[in-house]
Amino acid sequence: MELISLGIDIGGTNTIAGFVDRNGKVLDKVSIRTCDYELIGDYMHALTAEINNSFAPLKDRYSLCGIGIGAPNGNYFTGTVDFAPNLRWKGVLPLAEMFHQRFNVPAVLTNDANAAAIGEMMYGGARGMKDFVVVTLGTGVGSGFVVNGELVYGHDGFAGELGHTIVDTEGRLCGCGRKGCLETYTSASGLKRTMIDLLNKSETPSNLRHFDLDSISAKMIAFEAKMGDILAIEAFEITGKILGLQLANTIALTSPEAIFLYGGLSKSGDVLFAPTHKYMELYLLNIFQNKVKLLYSELESDHAAILGASALVWKELN
Amino acid sequence: MELISLGIDIGGTNTIAGFVDRNGKVLDKVSIRTCDYELIGDYMHALTAEINNSFAPLKDRYSLCGIGIGAPNGNYFTGTVDFAPNLRWKGVLPLAEMFHQRFNVPAVLTNDANAAAIGEMMYGGARGMKDFVVVTLGTGVGSGFVVNGELVYGHDGFAGELGHTIVDTEGRLCGCGRKGCLETYTSASGLKRTMIDLLNKSETPSNLRHFDLDSISAKMIAFEAKMGDILAIEAFEITGKILGLQLANTIALTSPEAIFLYGGLSKSGDVLFAPTHKYMELYLLNIFQNKVKLLYSELESDHAAILGASALVWKELN
Repeated sequence: MELISLGIDIGGTNTIAGFVDRNGKVLDKVSIRTCDYELIGDYMHALTAEINNSFAPLKDRYSLCGIGIGAPNGNYFTGTVDFAPNLRWKGVLPLAEMFHQRFNVPAVLTNDANAAAIGEMMYGGARGMKDFVVVTLGTGVGSGFVVNGELVYGHDGFAGELGHTIVDTEGRLCGCGRKGCLETYTSASGLKRTMIDLLNKSETPSNLRHFDLDSISAKMIAFEAKMGDILAIEAFEITGKILGLQLANTIALTSPEAIFLYGGLSKSGDVLFAPTHKYMELYLLNIFQNKVKLLYSELESDHAAILGASALVWKELN
Repeated sequence: MELISLGIDIGGTNTIAGFVDRNGKVLDKVSIRTCDYELIGDYMHALTAEINNSFAPLKDRYSLCGIGIGAPNGNYFTGTVDFAPNLRWKGVLPLAEMFHQRFNVPAVLTNDANAAAIGEMMYGGARGMKDFVVVTLGTGVGSGFVVNGELVYGHDGFAGELGHTIVDTEGRLCGCGRKGCLETYTSASGLKRTMIDLLNKSETPSNLRHFDLDSISAKMIAFEAKMGDILAIEAFEITGKILGLQLANTIALTSPEAIFLYGGLSKSGDVLFAPTHKYMELYLLNIFQNKVKLLYSELESDHAAILGASALVWKELN
């Protein structure tokens, strides 16, 4: 019997679970809508049924050796999800234990950005690297740090909160209750806030003026920027400046070989990448300049979250 | 024969070298003035003579097993000191190799803040800790990170440059050529700059107005702050606010168990500690609040630099 792992990515909207072999091949995957379940018990029941259905045709050939879970506010040490603002279930949720009980194999849990970093190390562009950072740019901003070949969990399991470093103590209100977190500027919603600010403050023509402000998305801003829309380009310039600065400050601390950009907003392409890279180099101390690679994640995007979560299992088995 | 190591701390003004046993006892130490030597060859010659004199009465009982060197801009991987602004000798200096040649034992080199972190882990308050940071507050600001029980050297050996994270891109000019580095605000000279700004900008009475501005030192500001001088207290409040913010941002990334303050300015006492701690907690994400210990270094200050450098040797032997 060949060993396989189950990778589960729990997002605020959807949960995706997939069976992955040691080479990073996804054999099958299922998904349910996380936000449809008011009670965690009902969610677990539905997800377990889907996973069992998916495993049925595989079970003659494969043996499940473990479950890896990536979840917002996931804590590696406790196996719990603690007070995740984007999930309907509040408090401390012992998810690793709940999956362990249902499937009778070891279950490991960490936050989604840490899972992405392990996935990058095992299947992606960080293969062979010992020191790198993965920065996830999506609804929020997250990060996973690898130092000396090991993921940095920190003393309490919560390390890697780049999105909640403060770039301006009098800046934008963040979902965490504080002001000026990086996430309020360089996430998809941060970019949208910047774009709306620019539309409100200037008279410069922009295609985006034809849309209701609420309906503007990061994808639309990226599209218009690529089409040459001056204000959309400026929104990305501002975003890249703030992101580049925080990447430079991060490099000063851990001196990684590379930084990988991951997640929906990173797919904006050169309109985001070029200013981010320019300001990162501008704000770097001379000894770090022209040395640290800024790269896109090499995880296949349809499966990236599952691969990351499943990689946790192989990492533990090693 | 009992094994001993030689710890060498190279500062811009003085070099101190001492023989240390495995328990952190300093058996003897010598010092020479670094800045008196225009040529590195003359410096090495003089220092070697002093060290040999010091070792003569010890050599019947002790065997030297290695040399640890802490130096500004010291690189662990290459054993070199690269373009140190505070040393008279320019370029890339292969100091580890030079000491190895003269004493015929292994020589390891790193920057002074990393050496302090290893010293804290081996002989100080970080014994038993796996994740902590040492922040050196002196002429400059440095830092040494320990993650998963290992010092973070980073990809290229230059990790830990907290003093050169940028807190204000339009801020004070730094010795590194950039603007707004933490070091320009929270080093001894940064505090002095803040004090002089306050004296120039306000009319508030202050004892420090009786001195020539150039002659004001961090020690004098600390003394007056403890005496209740309103402007001196404000200078520390500003310093603590900026330091507290960067410590909070650092915690968000590596989630250490403790941060140790080390170096001359850290001896200012509560006038610096209280605002630093207050703002660190204020700017921390909720999951980190009231959890991370802010502590003073427990290395005996007369010997701290030697202990840190010598600890490098024991760390390598382990």
